[in-house]
Amino acid sequence: MTETVFTSASGKEWAMGLNRPFTIIGERINPTGRKILAEEMKNGDFSRVEADAIAQVNAGAHMLDVNAGIPLADEPALLAKCIEMVQALCPDTPISIDSSVHEALVAGLQVVKGRPLLNSVTGEEERLEAVLPLVKKYDCAVVAISNDDTGISEDPEVRYAVAKKIVERAMDYGIKPADVVVDPLVMPIGAMGGAGRQVFEILHRLRTELKCNSTCGASNISFGLPNRHGINAHFLAMASSHGMSSAIMNPLHDPEKQAIMAADVLNGFDANCLTWIQTYREPTAEGTAGAGRGRRQSRRSRG
Amino acid sequence: MTETVFTSASGKEWAMGLNRPFTIIGERINPTGRKILAEEMKNGDFSRVEADAIAQVNAGAHMLDVNAGIPLADEPALLAKCIEMVQALCPDTPISIDSSVHEALVAGLQVVKGRPLLNSVTGEEERLEAVLPLVKKYDCAVVAISNDDTGISEDPEVRYAVAKKIVERAMDYGIKPADVVVDPLVMPIGAMGGAGRQVFEILHRLRTELKCNSTCGASNISFGLPNRHGINAHFLAMASSHGMSSAIMNPLHDPEKQAIMAADVLNGFDANCLTWIQTYREPTAEGTAGAGRGRRQSRRSRG
Repeated sequence: MTETVFTSASGKEWAMGLNRPFTIIGERINPTGRKILAEEMKNGDFSRVEADAIAQVNAGAHMLDVNAGIPLADEPALLAKCIEMVQALCPDTPISIDSSVHEALVAGLQVVKGRPLLNSVTGEEERLEAVLPLVKKYDCAVVAISNDDTGISEDPEVRYAVAKKIVERAMDYGIKPADVVVDPLVMPIGAMGGAGRQVFEILHRLRTELKCNSTCGASNISFGLPNRHGINAHFLAMASSHGMSSAIMNPLHDPEKQAIMAADVLNGFDANCLTWIQTYREPTAEGTAGAGRGRRQSRRSRG
Repeated sequence: MTETVFTSASGKEWAMGLNRPFTIIGERINPTGRKILAEEMKNGDFSRVEADAIAQVNAGAHMLDVNAGIPLADEPALLAKCIEMVQALCPDTPISIDSSVHEALVAGLQVVKGRPLLNSVTGEEERLEAVLPLVKKYDCAVVAISNDDTGISEDPEVRYAVAKKIVERAMDYGIKPADVVVDPLVMPIGAMGGAGRQVFEILHRLRTELKCNSTCGASNISFGLPNRHGINAHFLAMASSHGMSSAIMNPLHDPEKQAIMAADVLNGFDANCLTWIQTYREPTAEGTAGAGRGRRQSRRSRG
C-alpha cells in the first residue's frame, strides 16, 4: 500500500500513507497574508517563526511547511535560513519546502536535513521541467497541484487527468508515484456547491487508480462562509474517509484537530482508540486527566 | 434517483433521498434506558413525550421516531396513544413507528396519519413474514436491519447480503426498493477498529448496487469512548458522504446537528449554503443575528 516516507533532521521517519493516520502538515510558517510576520522576517526577526514551529509541533503537526514568499525580499536566502532554524528547533519533524520560486526551492533543498516534501509542482510544462529534476536529484517527494497551462479546471475529470499526467511525467524522471502527493485543488463550496463531492470523487480515483497520497489546503473549502472551522473540520473528516492522506492546515484550531483525531478513529488508524481516549478521557481520582471533554452517555438500544 | 416519500398528519411530504439533504429522525421518544420517562408513560403521563416531540422538531428533526417499549406495559395501546398525541402536536412531521412487538406495529399503523416509516424488519424469517405484509398493506416504508437468524455478522459482506435479501423479499411482496431503508448496523469502534470503514463500504454498495436509502442509530459507534459527541458527529458527516441518507439521532446535541448541517453543505445539498449561513452568520448592526459562532478567517493562499 502506498507510503511516502519523510525524514527529519535527526533522521526520524514519518510515513504518509493510505492506510496510515492522517498527516498534519503545519501551515503557519507562511508570510502570505500575515503582514506582521512578513515584516519581521524581512528585518531578520524570526522569533515568530520559532514560536509557530514549536506551537504547531506541540499541537500535533507531523510535518512543518516552511514558506518565505515575501515581495521584494531575497526569498532563497530567507527560506534557507528559516528551514535551518526550524530544523534546529524541531529536529524530529520533517519539512515541506514551500515556494513558487525555483531558486528558493533549490536553496531549501541545499540546506534541508533529512527527506523533505517539495511544495510544489503543477501540470504546467515549464514547472514540470524545472521541478521534477530537483525531486529526482535530491530524492524527495513532491506536491503535485492539479492545474496546468490552461489554468484550474472546474471539471474534476480534467483535474484528475492533470494529476495523472504529473505522475506519469514523474515516472519518466524515475520518480515513484508514491513520491507524488496530489493536491486535487479544493474550491470554495460557497461558490460551487459540488466542490466537496468533486474532491471526494477525485480522491477515490487517486486512491484506487493512481495509488497516490494526497494533500490539500483545506480551508479554501469554506472561503466566504461563516463558522469556517465547522466546515473545514467536517470536510477534513469526510475527505479522509475517501482517501485524503494529509492536509496543509493549522493544528492549533481545535475543531480541525478534533476532526482529524475522530477521522483516524473512524478510519481505523487510531489503534485501540488510544490517542482519542488519552485526549478526551475524564479526569480520575488519580489525576490522570485528559482534555476531559468526554461526557458519559447511555447506549441507545434499538427497541 | 432513490427517494422515499413520507407524509405527516397534515399531508406534508418529506422525501428521504440519496441526492437530498440528510434526514434527521428524532430518537428521543423512547423509554428504553429512560427510567423516568418509562414510569411516567406507564402511569399515563405523556408530558415528557410532548415536550420531546416539540423540542426535537424545533431542533430540526424531519421525522419523529415513536417507541413505547416498556416491560409489562400494554405496548400496543401505549404506542397508539403516543403516536396520536405526537401527531396532534406536530402535524407537519412524519412518524417512524418503532417496536419489536408485532401487535404494537399494527396498532401504530392503525392510528397513524400520513405515510410513516415502520421500524423495523430484520432478515429473520419470522420477522420478514410478519412485517413485510404490513408494509404492503399499509403502503409505508420500512427500516431493514441487516441481521438475520444467525445474528449480527461482523463481516460486512454478510450484512450487505442480508440487506439484499430483505430488499428482494420486499419486492416479492410488491414493495419497492426505495421503500426499504437499510440499517447497515453500526458496531462500536472501540471494540472493532474497522467498524467505520465497514459501514462506509456497505453504504457505497447500498447506494450504487441496491439503490436504497439507509439509516442508523449513530451513537452506537462511540459506545465506551469519551467525548462520544465528537465521534458521533464526525461519523455522521463521513457516513453521509458515502451515502447514508438518514439517522435516528438526537437533534438537540449540537455537535451532531452541526455535523449534519456541514455535511449537507459539503455533499452539495444545502443550496447556496443558505441554512448554514442563516445559522452561523455573525450579528449585524440590524440585529439579524444567527447563531453567531462564525469567525472570520483570511484565505490561505498557496505560495
